[in-house]
Amino acid sequence: MKIALAQQNYHIGNFEHNIQKILAGIEEAVGQGAELVVFSELCVCGYPPRDFLEFNDFINKCYQAIDVIKDKTENIGVIVGCPVRNSSSEGKNLFNAAWVLHKREVKAIVHKTLLPTYDVFDEYRYFEPSFEWNVVEFNNIRIALTICEDLWNLSDKPLYRSAPMDKLIKQNPDIMINISASPFDYDHDDDRREVIRANVLKYEIPIVYCNTVGSQTEIVFDGGSLVLDKKGSIVKEMKYFEEDFAIVDTDNLKSSGAPVQPDDNLGQIYSALKLGIKDYFRKMGFTKAILGSSGGIDSAVTMAIACDALGAENVRAILMPSQYSSDHSVEDAVQLSNTLQNPYDIIPIKNVYDAFLKELKPVFNDLPFSIAEENIQSRTRGNLLMAIANKFGYILLNTSNKSELATGYGTLYGDMAGGLSVLGDVYKTQVFALAKYINRTKEIIPVNIIAKPPSAELRPGQKDSDSLPEYDVLDKVLYQYIENRKGPSEIIATGVDQALVARILKMVNTNEYKRNQFCPIIRISRKAFGVGRRMPIVGKYLS
Amino acid sequence: MKIALAQQNYHIGNFEHNIQKILAGIEEAVGQGAELVVFSELCVCGYPPRDFLEFNDFINKCYQAIDVIKDKTENIGVIVGCPVRNSSSEGKNLFNAAWVLHKREVKAIVHKTLLPTYDVFDEYRYFEPSFEWNVVEFNNIRIALTICEDLWNLSDKPLYRSAPMDKLIKQNPDIMINISASPFDYDHDDDRREVIRANVLKYEIPIVYCNTVGSQTEIVFDGGSLVLDKKGSIVKEMKYFEEDFAIVDTDNLKSSGAPVQPDDNLGQIYSALKLGIKDYFRKMGFTKAILGSSGGIDSAVTMAIACDALGAENVRAILMPSQYSSDHSVEDAVQLSNTLQNPYDIIPIKNVYDAFLKELKPVFNDLPFSIAEENIQSRTRGNLLMAIANKFGYILLNTSNKSELATGYGTLYGDMAGGLSVLGDVYKTQVFALAKYINRTKEIIPVNIIAKPPSAELRPGQKDSDSLPEYDVLDKVLYQYIENRKGPSEIIATGVDQALVARILKMVNTNEYKRNQFCPIIRISRKAFGVGRRMPIVGKYLS
Repeated sequence: MKIALAQQNYHIGNFEHNIQKILAGIEEAVGQGAELVVFSELCVCGYPPRDFLEFNDFINKCYQAIDVIKDKTENIGVIVGCPVRNSSSEGKNLFNAAWVLHKREVKAIVHKTLLPTYDVFDEYRYFEPSFEWNVVEFNNIRIALTICEDLWNLSDKPLYRSAPMDKLIKQNPDIMINISASPFDYDHDDDRREVIRANVLKYEIPIVYCNTVGSQTEIVFDGGSLVLDKKGSIVKEMKYFEEDFAIVDTDNLKSSGAPVQPDDNLGQIYSALKLGIKDYFRKMGFTKAILGSSGGIDSAVTMAIACDALGAENVRAILMPSQYSSDHSVEDAVQLSNTLQNPYDIIPIKNVYDAFLKELKPVFNDLPFSIAEENIQSRTRGNLLMAIANKFGYILLNTSNKSELATGYGTLYGDMAGGLSVLGDVYKTQVFALAKYINRTKEIIPVNIIAKPPSAELRPGQKDSDSLPEYDVLDKVLYQYIENRKGPSEIIATGVDQALVARILKMVNTNEYKRNQFCPIIRISRKAFGVGRRMPIVGKYLS
Repeated sequence: MKIALAQQNYHIGNFEHNIQKILAGIEEAVGQGAELVVFSELCVCGYPPRDFLEFNDFINKCYQAIDVIKDKTENIGVIVGCPVRNSSSEGKNLFNAAWVLHKREVKAIVHKTLLPTYDVFDEYRYFEPSFEWNVVEFNNIRIALTICEDLWNLSDKPLYRSAPMDKLIKQNPDIMINISASPFDYDHDDDRREVIRANVLKYEIPIVYCNTVGSQTEIVFDGGSLVLDKKGSIVKEMKYFEEDFAIVDTDNLKSSGAPVQPDDNLGQIYSALKLGIKDYFRKMGFTKAILGSSGGIDSAVTMAIACDALGAENVRAILMPSQYSSDHSVEDAVQLSNTLQNPYDIIPIKNVYDAFLKELKPVFNDLPFSIAEENIQSRTRGNLLMAIANKFGYILLNTSNKSELATGYGTLYGDMAGGLSVLGDVYKTQVFALAKYINRTKEIIPVNIIAKPPSAELRPGQKDSDSLPEYDVLDKVLYQYIENRKGPSEIIATGVDQALVARILKMVNTNEYKRNQFCPIIRISRKAFGVGRRMPIVGKYLS
């Protein structure tokens, strides 16, 4: 049987847009002679729809979309992801479902069993897990149809007490089809191929695995849909970070050899961040970005990726030197914009800063310079950037990195301002690596920006290392704590000084209140700050 | 049997504090001759511990706390809430459990079955649901021991497909004991009494229901623990919004008559907000608040409640008039602080605002006055407030109301700044009602503040009604959309103009990006903005 895979980029709640995509996919599949075309999980409404699912009106629109799509299935079977109402009086209102449409009818609806409810996923918030399992028969092929997580239960310590494939395999299916919305992280892609292969090896039938692509606020779906023959060889691996379309003939599955996805973490991270920016702007209906260009590495890397994602002419840099800025900061920032060929302005902050200090004089009296004065400068910059953004319709790109966000080394409403954080899931040491990656063929980011010691330049001679441990140690401890959820004793056992570990973990935990007000962060790791990491703000643990 | 109920206020992750509380409760119960003392759900670590539960180190500390508590159970049985590890290789790592401790031993561990995963609750994120049910025998009494949500499945459309009490009742228990962490909302308290009573009437045995009290960031637990005899009469109703301790004799349950909780929504809301402020500051380790005092009703109500919660001497008001402020604004704000007897300062913003405009002149050129200039003023105020907060160690109280947050009628980093939102779950019409409630015995909030039309005073003659529908209509539509999740057609059917409904829902949905960066909001309704309402930011639905 010729099966088409449509790996597409949907827009949550934008039914018109999603229907159009799906109909185009059907048309292409029909044109190429496919008998069945497979789309991804919840493609009709976009994934994750979150609390939109609690609106009856939203579910009605999902059903209306199904009706429109169904009308185009005279000559082809179509598998789409779409919520379905629970007709029983018990349990949650909805199932996360795969709908099989053919000859203008709903031929079958399969409910998802394993509902990821961890990290960025909240599926049990909305969906009842399936409790019935049946193979779907289509054109004499018996399909074990499942949805994403349904296949992810094969470890030694499975997260769920049963797996739907163990039920379905008893009904002698010919093939597995899985529709997914499986996001990128830089540790995850190998996992995914291995999990798909492990299913094939266990159940000994081929698989068609169709993933979605595109960024939804913070979550980047990277595509990479797969077809494996029953021996576990990759027959088809689809593009990463791009829409793609493919057809396979299940009667004649031939291995295509090397995988598409290069084993290049930095390249993947770069692509994820670029897609994250591009889709955020497009889906929010914006075209132009603004950002503060300090002459430091974080703003340089952010700007380089933004120029690539949005076009340099759409990225406006604002240089806002203070009396504490070093000369080279402005020079480096100017050189960067000259290389990237994006517009920039210089607005010194001294006069506004002085005006603030003058008005605050009766309150501050003669108290010494402190973090308050540092923050005034940072917030003056935030205010200037937002003013220009509001005046001309830019989105402010935030340039904070994950190491800063983790330790609270940033100013709320100052350098923490912005609509989207590009580097908030990228540790400082990774930012340096990204800078070098960006410069791999020619010098885009001035080497001086990469070489000089990081500084916030909010007081004379300030360096990050005055307040923070060296980044190589800091980032290692943060990774153990944040990504690996290791406790103090486990981290100390890796050879880091006890007092330093305590100091770092305390910094992380006492700054939840700051991160709680931070903008969405493009997620590239297994554990990003934001929706996937939920900590009590008033909690007192390791603090 | 004499059973003690300890209704206590815990601090998440602060094991030392929580253990001390629990030991004091045990001591009091022993002193009063109780055979068994009951604490609330997850009291050992505080509720909700959120992703702290993913740290092995955190669970180790829970177990260490159990060891300390167990040592004090020589002469009394103790029921405490504490996570327990899942010893099976399948399923989530933990159960949410009730531990029965006696004679320095763990006598029983009961796992929670029904895991609330909706609104502010995320329990299936962490816990495996129970799949075994056994009555606990203690001093010859057979106890059907359950945890919070386990009893909440008695409606016509139950959220879960089975209920643990249906299994337990077959084992002939003498009494139900339920340990809870059930939060306040102004529609909920009657529900809670009715749900407890419905269980008693269905299973025909008495119940001891022990709830927690205290505010945890945004969630206010209101106590009101209950003991009902087997006919459903209230034997004991414990205090609301306060810690409390009680002893009942299950061999001789006598009804105590009228409920403690008056049926007074405004009084309850006031108490919840006051406790929300008080606990946020105490648990964050702060004592002093600062806020912008505009002469408007939102800041007046916020300030009155804050003075009550923290002491007037700990609440500093900053008056920041601009050239667009009316004369009476400053007068009203001064009068308010004179009545409340809290300190205030006046810092005009004109000079800073002018300095901003001067620096922006080369970028803005001669473009007309717009929202950008309005926001500069608001952010200048935010910057001044944060500067003083940073200098002296205040937490900035935010004064935005729910109607503003819903419609995006506020400035990010300006009037949306702050560490805690007092009125973010209170619609504008409710703010007016609260003001009158605060003034019920004497004029605390100047009547002029209540009487004048709301205005942001960011341009000449500005009124809220220039940008927003009248608040009585707006709030009704918002309530239908936010609390009741009604769609456009359902709201139009209540008699509101179609175009107005579309305009309001669009305002709500296109401002997710702003609310996403907002501080925690003390939750008083069934559906507050914040952790309990999760919307896609790039979503395009009704927008």
